[in-house]
Amino acid sequence: MPMLSPLAPARFPHLPPLSGVKLASAACGIRYQGRDDLMVAVLDPGTAVAGVFTRSQTPGAPVDWCRKCLPHRIARAIVVNSGNSNVFTGRAGRKVVEATAKTAAKLVKCRPDEVYIASTGVIGEPPPAEKILAGLPGAFAEASPGHWPQAARAIMTTDTFPKGATKTAKIDGVTVTINGFAKGSGMIAPDMATMLVYLFTDAAIAAPALQRLLTDTNEISFNSITVDGDTSTSDTVLLCATGKAPHKKVTRAADPRLKGFKAALEAVMVDLAQQVVRDGEGAEKFIAIEVKGAVSDLSARRIGLAIGNSPLVKTALAANDANWGRIVMAVGKAGEKADRDRLKISVGGIKIAEKGGPVPGYDEAPVTEHMKGREISMQIDIGLGKGRATVWTCDLTHRYIDINGSYRS
Amino acid sequence: MPMLSPLAPARFPHLPPLSGVKLASAACGIRYQGRDDLMVAVLDPGTAVAGVFTRSQTPGAPVDWCRKCLPHRIARAIVVNSGNSNVFTGRAGRKVVEATAKTAAKLVKCRPDEVYIASTGVIGEPPPAEKILAGLPGAFAEASPGHWPQAARAIMTTDTFPKGATKTAKIDGVTVTINGFAKGSGMIAPDMATMLVYLFTDAAIAAPALQRLLTDTNEISFNSITVDGDTSTSDTVLLCATGKAPHKKVTRAADPRLKGFKAALEAVMVDLAQQVVRDGEGAEKFIAIEVKGAVSDLSARRIGLAIGNSPLVKTALAANDANWGRIVMAVGKAGEKADRDRLKISVGGIKIAEKGGPVPGYDEAPVTEHMKGREISMQIDIGLGKGRATVWTCDLTHRYIDINGSYRS
Repeated sequence: MPMLSPLAPARFPHLPPLSGVKLASAACGIRYQGRDDLMVAVLDPGTAVAGVFTRSQTPGAPVDWCRKCLPHRIARAIVVNSGNSNVFTGRAGRKVVEATAKTAAKLVKCRPDEVYIASTGVIGEPPPAEKILAGLPGAFAEASPGHWPQAARAIMTTDTFPKGATKTAKIDGVTVTINGFAKGSGMIAPDMATMLVYLFTDAAIAAPALQRLLTDTNEISFNSITVDGDTSTSDTVLLCATGKAPHKKVTRAADPRLKGFKAALEAVMVDLAQQVVRDGEGAEKFIAIEVKGAVSDLSARRIGLAIGNSPLVKTALAANDANWGRIVMAVGKAGEKADRDRLKISVGGIKIAEKGGPVPGYDEAPVTEHMKGREISMQIDIGLGKGRATVWTCDLTHRYIDINGSYRS
Repeated sequence: MPMLSPLAPARFPHLPPLSGVKLASAACGIRYQGRDDLMVAVLDPGTAVAGVFTRSQTPGAPVDWCRKCLPHRIARAIVVNSGNSNVFTGRAGRKVVEATAKTAAKLVKCRPDEVYIASTGVIGEPPPAEKILAGLPGAFAEASPGHWPQAARAIMTTDTFPKGATKTAKIDGVTVTINGFAKGSGMIAPDMATMLVYLFTDAAIAAPALQRLLTDTNEISFNSITVDGDTSTSDTVLLCATGKAPHKKVTRAADPRLKGFKAALEAVMVDLAQQVVRDGEGAEKFIAIEVKGAVSDLSARRIGLAIGNSPLVKTALAANDANWGRIVMAVGKAGEKADRDRLKISVGGIKIAEKGGPVPGYDEAPVTEHMKGREISMQIDIGLGKGRATVWTCDLTHRYIDINGSYRS
């Protein structure tokens, strides 16, 4: 077990039981010893599902499978293993996915394409099908409405803490709940649905509307974080709505009744996204990069990610070094519209540079003081338009190299 | 002085005097103590010049200056300081460049826009104009046809060794020489003219043809390397042709008489580009990534750079770990056409994976043996087209973090 991230939250939040969702975890010995490595979720009939997946050109077999299932829009079970990603495993890998779906479907009494699958861990080693299949009957038998922390733990790989979040909202005066958990620590990068994230709600929302909400909110949450710029082959975010809450079903994402729900969903997704960054491999600081004045929101996000992915910025952050010249460099290389002489840079709210140079009388001391903290913020004003975005990242430390030089061994 | 890169060449090559070129270096105390930090080159009248510069949106004042000079196509002097990059220094920075050009022009008896300037070092601190200007008269007075190693040393920042290369070629039966030197170690990234590189030849080649040769060869040399994916604000490559060699002037880049010259220029530029990688910050291994079967050469290069920029690939390389799954990941995230099931991956010439999985009976031992060496090669066949490219990079080690956490202090 690696050292706990210094950015870890004090505790896993209390996630209340959610009508229509049961969870379980089990230890199958896929790779890790002495811990659970299989998570199953059982969803009541009628559960709508939305999903976003990695845009990698070399996705894992489980991602291919989920993509094929999604048009059916119904989820009755989720099966996730850690320790082996089932990526680049050829025919053998596809067979494991099919066998897993078939076995789970029999246990839950549903169609195989109502079973969503994910795998996370080492790439390129054939997954031990027999161990996964052997673990399923016991896991499904033990599924219960609690078990959220156990489920969140079972899907961890290099994570140092389990990640959960919960919020309530009202739809038509009826309280609905959103619970979610996530895993992710390395191979975390922008421009896709990052990592493994499972979101559940008892709200009654039709699948197409659910998909719209998920896709939009994904952009400003998981697609706005980066640990190392390396896009995973297995990224999956699923949002399941059991429809058990006693309000009239919502069929359009634009329905005004969803206002509170949207805000709650965003809060849960941003919370989980930030927790993934806080558990970034080797992370010792959490950094919020607030970009405004770009030509579009997308442009702002790309600039934020160029800063957040720069190894020079990230090593300076690790060293408490207010080396803002590297921020200028990263803005310049982002491939987005920028004008050196309109650019404004602040760190911790303290203005550092504008009009193509440092502000007159710039005093580095208070900036360095801010840099020594665990939570760093920087404000970048591109000075060209109204586009804005916030990107979250972590610093690049020796532990990132230790972790990734020894992950397999 | 940092520890010498374990990938450093045994010695700086012998660069012969080159008719029409004189060099000098001087210690101005700009930032470093006890070493030269100013380099000047004096070029005879009639020297044609070609240049490529950073595509950063936040370039330094010297880059702006050189871009403005280039259409005039004549270079009579080059002035480079290390220790301060004169980037994001506003009006003060522009004034330093203008004063430097004016002072140098007076000393050399040329126009200010025939003086090319570069600065490398910390970003965002106003450059000490008086120290640079004070150093110029002595430096120009001492300029001589030798001094290649001293010139290469004077422009170093975090470099651990000076980088030089030389080749001869025949044009119309007349032997011409190409000498070059370069600096670069961090903030080295693709898709532009990387670092500071100065190339000189006595060949008589008209400036437009020279520019074509430089731009084309730059793509397969400096634009094909990466240390950390961070594009510098100061990247400059200049090629100066004094025209002293007694052959008839060549005016077209496509002239068949340039065949040998082109090959020699490519050899010098690739050699210098590889030396920059060999001096990559913290580098302990040199990696050649050979990509073929992509839909175009550009696509092949982008895939190669995605692999070469991946922190997960680079940390695995540092750890001698044949973790080829991370290569699959990097191909997948490159944003280029790829098909998981057509992809073939070899390391050190040993086939590892094809048809969506590891090759039958894959034995990791010989691959690990290759990974333990200083020189690693990997072969990636995308299996879709005829595009090919070779990209050079280094591993990501603890020393990169040490160097970049303490560069300023």
